[in-house]
Amino acid sequence: MAAEMAEQPDVLARLAGRADEIEAAVRGVAPVGPAGIILVARGSSDYAAIYGRYAIEIASRRPVALAAPSIQTLYQSPTDLTDWLAIAVSQSGRTPEIVTMTEKMRAAGARSIAVTNTPESPLAAVADVTIDLAAGEEKAVPATKTFSASLLAFALIAQALGPGELRDRMGGASGWVQWVLDDPGSAERVATELHYAEGLIAVGRGYMFSVALEAALKLKETTSILAEGYSAADLRHGPIAVVERDFPVLTFNVPGPAAPDMDELIAWLRSEPKAHVMQAHAGDGADLPLPPDCPEALAPIPAAVRAQQVALQLALRKGLDPDKPEGLSKVTATT
Amino acid sequence: MAAEMAEQPDVLARLAGRADEIEAAVRGVAPVGPAGIILVARGSSDYAAIYGRYAIEIASRRPVALAAPSIQTLYQSPTDLTDWLAIAVSQSGRTPEIVTMTEKMRAAGARSIAVTNTPESPLAAVADVTIDLAAGEEKAVPATKTFSASLLAFALIAQALGPGELRDRMGGASGWVQWVLDDPGSAERVATELHYAEGLIAVGRGYMFSVALEAALKLKETTSILAEGYSAADLRHGPIAVVERDFPVLTFNVPGPAAPDMDELIAWLRSEPKAHVMQAHAGDGADLPLPPDCPEALAPIPAAVRAQQVALQLALRKGLDPDKPEGLSKVTATT
Repeated sequence: MAAEMAEQPDVLARLAGRADEIEAAVRGVAPVGPAGIILVARGSSDYAAIYGRYAIEIASRRPVALAAPSIQTLYQSPTDLTDWLAIAVSQSGRTPEIVTMTEKMRAAGARSIAVTNTPESPLAAVADVTIDLAAGEEKAVPATKTFSASLLAFALIAQALGPGELRDRMGGASGWVQWVLDDPGSAERVATELHYAEGLIAVGRGYMFSVALEAALKLKETTSILAEGYSAADLRHGPIAVVERDFPVLTFNVPGPAAPDMDELIAWLRSEPKAHVMQAHAGDGADLPLPPDCPEALAPIPAAVRAQQVALQLALRKGLDPDKPEGLSKVTATT
Repeated sequence: MAAEMAEQPDVLARLAGRADEIEAAVRGVAPVGPAGIILVARGSSDYAAIYGRYAIEIASRRPVALAAPSIQTLYQSPTDLTDWLAIAVSQSGRTPEIVTMTEKMRAAGARSIAVTNTPESPLAAVADVTIDLAAGEEKAVPATKTFSASLLAFALIAQALGPGELRDRMGGASGWVQWVLDDPGSAERVATELHYAEGLIAVGRGYMFSVALEAALKLKETTSILAEGYSAADLRHGPIAVVERDFPVLTFNVPGPAAPDMDELIAWLRSEPKAHVMQAHAGDGADLPLPPDCPEALAPIPAAVRAQQVALQLALRKGLDPDKPEGLSKVTATT
């Protein structure tokens, strides 16, 4: 896991270097003025898709839906997808459910893009166009370099489907991630504070919601801690009841429209239940500093690497092998 | 909470009695062959919407998306929703975010339906059509009768937007819920087994995914237990790492296309991590029996009442007031 995390700046630099080629492929396959865009994924890739949903809907101004695969795979409901664009994400390209779903969506009229680290996979074979993440083989069970690469792939797709306002910022991802990797000490300190925690809540809003979900998943995968990710809005609707005095809450917050709501929630968490709030943000005094020059729409990329660092450090402190969590395998054969 | 749970058979009977009126209203407002349907909700209502997503997409064969409200409310991205149908759910009708989102979706071209327990609310005022759940005032913070009524409202909307194959079964909801309420002992036994649990996972698939999420939320709200809901498919993609020996897992499973996958997961949970699996199903030997004559597409209604019973009993056993969980209020002012 640590070795693959370290490869991320190179993986992201290579992917950003193919921006023109990827954008051309996306524009070539997408229906003109698509009726909507549907994203299909499971696990970590599903959280990458939640980022993709924000990036693509905000850029393209077309509705983006996250698929409920079982509607097609179990219930055989032939949803009509004429003029829709489907984007399926699977690193192995072999999750049967994602492959079947992509075939069914094409049969229902959608044009399709596969985002995968395995361009010779069954998923790539059934899609109209494949975006090869070219991240190299990922051996550790917890996805790291394929996750950050998927985020950048979604950012590139969003640029292709919209006015492309962030096109010249894509090359920055590699440097922002290197900036995070060059500071392992922050995550070590957070992991020390989490050592005896039974549970944890991770919170983000807007673009950062995806990172809160991924942080919780990475911590569950590597350490078996009961970690849950929420949007700041959903947390207030009930789940906040679990936050008692000293309960650890990890927040992901960057300047932008979502920041005032996050700031208000953090102030409340600190004053009312007196939660143990640990913050990832781009300003002074952050527990997990984020690069200050990264636009909000791309900040999930370095923020996800912060989450990886904490999961790795906490696993090591607990004497666990982060690469091979008990009971997990790399390809999940959901049908 | 107990008193409001007991009102559910009456609330559901009254709502089913208005099926013709509700279906006519939905057909009157929905675009012919809608481009898609977008659902907007937070908290418990969001889980009702996840049920609605399955019910409506399977019946109507049109794509259904769950909105990410912040895309419109924070990022001000004017997604074009011409020919879309928007359905917003808020029991109070006063959650500012849901009201704002509904206004923005109408301005973007969508026709809109409000599902609410407060027909004179701001939400009803901005929607084209209102479905009044008429469940009576809900005083307990954990939603019970408005949740089951929302599920039935989504089932009625699905019938209106599709061939209506389940139309003559809607009247059964009241009786299935009464059947569950007449057996409080099962939930008392499950609550006894959960008394010392720190965490819990609830699992369902397909239609029952919504109930797993709602069960986890109800338990969090009333008992502060670290409960998390998953689809069987997502659980395998990483989170299953938290399931250790004797870890409590609550499963919701009814006959239908999702059952074989659930059965396989349950067998694995019992043999590998040796989890403490407690099952809600419609066959013999269930920990939480479900009515045997209820079609899969409507089974979430009685199953949600099973989840309410467990949350109520566990709160009482822990000496907590289920009606007023610490730190929660009935209307959540997310913007």
